[in-house]
Amino acid sequence: MKKLWDKGYDLNKTIESFTVGNDPILDKQLVKYDCIASIAHAKMLGKINLLSKDEVNELVHELNNIIDLDKTGEFNITQEQEDCHTAIEMFLTSKLGDIGKKIHTARSRNDQVLTALRLYYIDHIAIVEQSINRLTTSISNMSNKYGKIQFPGYTHMQKAMPSSFELWCNSFSDSMMDNLILLKTATKLVDQSPLGTAAGYGVPLNIDRKFTAEELQFSRVQENPIYTQYSRGKFEITILHILSQIMLDLNKIASDLILFSMPEFGYVKLPDEFCTGSSIMPQKKNPDVLELLRAKYHIVSSYEFQVSRLTSNLISGYNRDMQLTKEPIMNGFSVTLESLQIADLLFSNLKVNKQKCHDALTDELFATEKVYDLVKQGVPFRDAYLKVAKIINKI
Amino acid sequence: MKKLWDKGYDLNKTIESFTVGNDPILDKQLVKYDCIASIAHAKMLGKINLLSKDEVNELVHELNNIIDLDKTGEFNITQEQEDCHTAIEMFLTSKLGDIGKKIHTARSRNDQVLTALRLYYIDHIAIVEQSINRLTTSISNMSNKYGKIQFPGYTHMQKAMPSSFELWCNSFSDSMMDNLILLKTATKLVDQSPLGTAAGYGVPLNIDRKFTAEELQFSRVQENPIYTQYSRGKFEITILHILSQIMLDLNKIASDLILFSMPEFGYVKLPDEFCTGSSIMPQKKNPDVLELLRAKYHIVSSYEFQVSRLTSNLISGYNRDMQLTKEPIMNGFSVTLESLQIADLLFSNLKVNKQKCHDALTDELFATEKVYDLVKQGVPFRDAYLKVAKIINKI
Amino acid sequence: MKKLWDKGYDLNKTIESFTVGNDPILDKQLVKYDCIASIAHAKMLGKINLLSKDEVNELVHELNNIIDLDKTGEFNITQEQEDCHTAIEMFLTSKLGDIGKKIHTARSRNDQVLTALRLYYIDHIAIVEQSINRLTTSISNMSNKYGKIQFPGYTHMQKAMPSSFELWCNSFSDSMMDNLILLKTATKLVDQSPLGTAAGYGVPLNIDRKFTAEELQFSRVQENPIYTQYSRGKFEITILHILSQIMLDLNKIASDLILFSMPEFGYVKLPDEFCTGSSIMPQKKNPDVLELLRAKYHIVSSYEFQVSRLTSNLISGYNRDMQLTKEPIMNGFSVTLESLQIADLLFSNLKVNKQKCHDALTDELFATEKVYDLVKQGVPFRDAYLKVAKIINKI
Amino acid sequence: MKKLWDKGYDLNKTIESFTVGNDPILDKQLVKYDCIASIAHAKMLGKINLLSKDEVNELVHELNNIIDLDKTGEFNITQEQEDCHTAIEMFLTSKLGDIGKKIHTARSRNDQVLTALRLYYIDHIAIVEQSINRLTTSISNMSNKYGKIQFPGYTHMQKAMPSSFELWCNSFSDSMMDNLILLKTATKLVDQSPLGTAAGYGVPLNIDRKFTAEELQFSRVQENPIYTQYSRGKFEITILHILSQIMLDLNKIASDLILFSMPEFGYVKLPDEFCTGSSIMPQKKNPDVLELLRAKYHIVSSYEFQVSRLTSNLISGYNRDMQLTKEPIMNGFSVTLESLQIADLLFSNLKVNKQKCHDALTDELFATEKVYDLVKQGVPFRDAYLKVAKIINKI
Repeated sequence: MKKLWDKGYDLNKTIESFTVGNDPILDKQLVKYDCIASIAHAKMLGKINLLSKDEVNELVHELNNIIDLDKTGEFNITQEQEDCHTAIEMFLTSKLGDIGKKIHTARSRNDQVLTALRLYYIDHIAIVEQSINRLTTSISNMSNKYGKIQFPGYTHMQKAMPSSFELWCNSFSDSMMDNLILLKTATKLVDQSPLGTAAGYGVPLNIDRKFTAEELQFSRVQENPIYTQYSRGKFEITILHILSQIMLDLNKIASDLILFSMPEFGYVKLPDEFCTGSSIMPQKKNPDVLELLRAKYHIVSSYEFQVSRLTSNLISGYNRDMQLTKEPIMNGFSVTLESLQIADLLFSNLKVNKQKCHDALTDELFATEKVYDLVKQGVPFRDAYLKVAKIINKI
Repeated sequence: MKKLWDKGYDLNKTIESFTVGNDPILDKQLVKYDCIASIAHAKMLGKINLLSKDEVNELVHELNNIIDLDKTGEFNITQEQEDCHTAIEMFLTSKLGDIGKKIHTARSRNDQVLTALRLYYIDHIAIVEQSINRLTTSISNMSNKYGKIQFPGYTHMQKAMPSSFELWCNSFSDSMMDNLILLKTATKLVDQSPLGTAAGYGVPLNIDRKFTAEELQFSRVQENPIYTQYSRGKFEITILHILSQIMLDLNKIASDLILFSMPEFGYVKLPDEFCTGSSIMPQKKNPDVLELLRAKYHIVSSYEFQVSRLTSNLISGYNRDMQLTKEPIMNGFSVTLESLQIADLLFSNLKVNKQKCHDALTDELFATEKVYDLVKQGVPFRDAYLKVAKIINKI
Repeated sequence: MKKLWDKGYDLNKTIESFTVGNDPILDKQLVKYDCIASIAHAKMLGKINLLSKDEVNELVHELNNIIDLDKTGEFNITQEQEDCHTAIEMFLTSKLGDIGKKIHTARSRNDQVLTALRLYYIDHIAIVEQSINRLTTSISNMSNKYGKIQFPGYTHMQKAMPSSFELWCNSFSDSMMDNLILLKTATKLVDQSPLGTAAGYGVPLNIDRKFTAEELQFSRVQENPIYTQYSRGKFEITILHILSQIMLDLNKIASDLILFSMPEFGYVKLPDEFCTGSSIMPQKKNPDVLELLRAKYHIVSSYEFQVSRLTSNLISGYNRDMQLTKEPIMNGFSVTLESLQIADLLFSNLKVNKQKCHDALTDELFATEKVYDLVKQGVPFRDAYLKVAKIINKI
Repeated sequence: MKKLWDKGYDLNKTIESFTVGNDPILDKQLVKYDCIASIAHAKMLGKINLLSKDEVNELVHELNNIIDLDKTGEFNITQEQEDCHTAIEMFLTSKLGDIGKKIHTARSRNDQVLTALRLYYIDHIAIVEQSINRLTTSISNMSNKYGKIQFPGYTHMQKAMPSSFELWCNSFSDSMMDNLILLKTATKLVDQSPLGTAAGYGVPLNIDRKFTAEELQFSRVQENPIYTQYSRGKFEITILHILSQIMLDLNKIASDLILFSMPEFGYVKLPDEFCTGSSIMPQKKNPDVLELLRAKYHIVSSYEFQVSRLTSNLISGYNRDMQLTKEPIMNGFSVTLESLQIADLLFSNLKVNKQKCHDALTDELFATEKVYDLVKQGVPFRDAYLKVAKIINKI
């Protein structure tokens, strides 16, 4: 079995394992996208007469075949094949002989990987957007149900002024709306076709990059091949930044609810399914799910910083270091998506304890109101403030 | 002298220094913005009849006075005053007595700080955009001058295929264009008026938030006061992310040029002003400026990381931890701006050594072309590749 | 099947997957250590008469049985069991009935996990130490073989003064020696028995912590149960810091050799097995293995910072967030160990090109020597420096 | 005025400001250490007859003079001089003429900086150790005063089992003891004399490195000049790691006390000096000092991360990027030292509310005790656990 870059010597097993890493597993998520991109590429090669119509048809047929096999989990990537790109080319060659050997014409593994990843990103950003929309619906439902209930608003973790669940719920909906603005920008960035930039310096053939871009529904061609290579890593950092911002919202939701559900507060009751027990203390109902939700922000944000380091202090042109950006970006998507799902379940099942909220609305929360009663009577704000402060703090 | 929150007891000096930190210095950059915001606030208080027309005029007059004093460096913030907000209110009270004490009506230091910072961000993002435009002009000038010169394109730090300075220059212009998309998104996020959200739970008065938003040229009101508070920190992370992306471009430019200017390559000659000598080795011309340009990416990116940590695992509502986000964001802007200026100088003065570039275009760079000559003759790509590989690698 | 904390209600599948995470896979590495710790615990329970001699013997027998099964890969942890601790207790209960139910007496899952992890750390730190010793032997062999060959020493990526492979090799041996000092400190920290601290507040029984500590060959008992809990996370950060420092050495080795093996320098020749080809450019021999070695520093260092974030802003006492420290620490060890092995192979197979080194020793490298010739003749250093500078730089 | 590396051309002002950075301010902390190192260096030059006895005496005299001027703030470093090293050499030359020009014989600015920094580190690590000792004394005093008072121990932020202030206080003392182990290791690493390694490749003179090492009370000579250069950055990461670990303790102390001092708990009362008010809410007493203490962990830990990035992906030999490690390490020390002082004040003034603690010791905290009552009667642990769980959770 030959690797794409095979030149005749055997690789030490240790080194193989070191260089291949988790790619055979991670690349399962890319098989579909690589086939879609290869179909567009084959058609383009047909258009510029580097492939005959028949060759194109056979390649398209077998690539669709792989997509079907992949759907049912029947398309495998072996450790020896390293990645989905080799596995796909080998499949084509085994089926179609010389025709399979032609699919790599006018492209490099570099732009091939880039194209598959871009298609994966566009799809997954859309899935994140859908998850956010589902979540904001649940938040809105909760707000409709409990929104009018007032409870203490805190600053510095001290009771400040009266808040309400409407205010609290909407704060996260609004934040998620701003996250959607960020996601839209991410899509705008990645929505450029890298196909045809080859190894970062183009190909000495008259290829039609606009054609493949349109076939793959990219809005534009990413013209400069050096920037195209460089944008691997750079775009990933932006995507991970945005996923982190989403996770930061969930981190805050979790932090709030862990506190508010403590018996000392009792403003909310977590769904039973969100709690686990202790192996030694039979009374415990621990908010494990929320603790993990809180923690996962750090995981995703660390992925961003991992990639931001990997790509630094390196010269232009592909460097193999970039291979290691694949795992953090893919994990970033999966952690964010499962976390959004958990948050959706949370808002759908959270209960507010009206009585506890009411009891917590103690006098000092209304001090600012008292100041403004004086202000309305014409007392300068700063004097009114000091007057109320003296009464409350008994000084 | 009284602090805004003074309640009668003295603060230990150590603690004062710990809590005040660098604010008196950092806040110099905010005086102007806080005055502009206070003018809008005063006018709004006039509009809802909490201040008389005369009171508004006097406040506006003195706030403009402060803006003028600040321009010439005559407005000071003392350590005891802690920050610009107290300094400004104290100035007003010393000039206008009771009228000064009314300026804080219907706002909190929280929304006051947020408003000043937002105005600062909008301004500084615009300055960054201008700097990027200046830089891309210089890049374009360099490309016009040297663009046709070919030199080796590298992958894996190995000669790959022929590149050119046009290709190389444009890769960074294109990247900077995408940075402008990101900056536009940042502006969209921060372009929401926080004024009127007070300490994060609104004020019990019928204030006109739309009026102040329009006075301050914000596109929209940030309605939810809890989200408004929370977005301090969150927006800063996004801004710092984008500044980091700009710095990553400069990191790559510097990495390329440090290598290309090594005598072993000699493709470019750095301007003399970009090099320094050694205290022990008289022959040295070191690319110090580029090394620092490369390094500053890590500084700015670490600021992002710093803020992303500071804001985590905390409940909703203002927490004092947020104070520490001011230094990284302000430093982030100043490092990025000076680095863009340096990069501009760099592209304006860089020279290309045509001869060295030409000499470096050795045979192996054209191997891919040879493969495609065979492909054009009908040899399947993979076979053509192996044929050329055998010749070159003599196997 | 019952979880340790089962209280009767079913868990939503989504939530189960969210909370269990990768533990069933990661915990395979802990089975042995958990059994060893459980054996010591059972003996202690026998000593204080909470178990009979027979019960102890049966437990010890079955725990050794699990160790054997685990060696041959026959001990499984199901998704439902969540982790190795539940799997082991369930195995014991299925074999021994009521006796199995007694093994968890006087401990909590918290100190159980801590103990297994500590034993794992002590073992793996020792393995890292052995790997370092193997590596320094290879470095020393290389130095013996090629050490006398001179080549340019660089500062600021500019030729500075003559260096040699002896100097270069020894720089990394010396650094690795200092890494061993750090590892020794890590061992000193983790070499404290956490067993008996239960959930972080002890157990209301007269247990013998000194006995289990001695059985498990810990040097001391970690007395304070709150600190014991808190040190999960804190110790992991230190270990990951040290692994990062080892990886930083490898990052520098890789960075040096990627440059030195460029044809433009040619000071060294990488073993063929360390290079791969390109899918489009048949001439390429890319130093992929070194690029990945360089990149993996960032992976391990990011693990450290991941854990340093996870553990912050949380109150004392176990928080579930800590579960997510398991993956970075385990991956940290495995990446470091495989990287050390690669580095060992590298130094064992690296070749120096004497001719290329010799040719690169150009005149300017000896400028400092010329300065000191003048100094020896009595010229003040600064004047001698300027004199030589003028000659060299022709000014 | 001439810089150490001046070769005759003027530097653009922008570039000067970019390259000099904050060094003139930061270097104030290094003047003393650079003079001490220069004294040892001058004596060594005397010993090997590169300076006469008189020259040595004059240099030593003037260097001591600078130390005295520096003590009273009368020794200045101008922007033009860039750093303390140039300022000191220029001072010597202005006082002693040709003799001053000889002080730089047989060293480079590289080893000069390294030596001054090492002496600074050794001193400052010792100061941190003293601060920790003062803090643990205060913790111990608090434990003596309030240690017997019980209050709830938490896991998952839920009441778990009874704890006490003795247990709580000691957890931090014990952690600080382990921090001292780490600090000792840091000292061991930096306690190697770099003086004489020059620019990283030694000097072509027969200097006596052992002599200067002994003069400066270093335990050993750092032999390898390449490793010596490389250890700048690497050692800084370790120091910053350890300072971060200290700050993590303070982060946890602050997190605990912010919660415990909330009126909803009231276990402790913070000293008035640790609290500030609100500009809008007159009732507020906010734990600002603790919030900042919590936040500063992230500042210091980010410094570590910053340096760990700056030093990566670079080849051996000094790179100017290293200059930017000076600010994070110096700030790291100052933030840690002021934070330890604040923590000391905190433990000296904190009050425990015995009544609130007592009231919080509700029944469920004793569930584990009930389980062990059954265990003592012979019920298998797991059955006893389920029995008590059923009673408490009413299922």
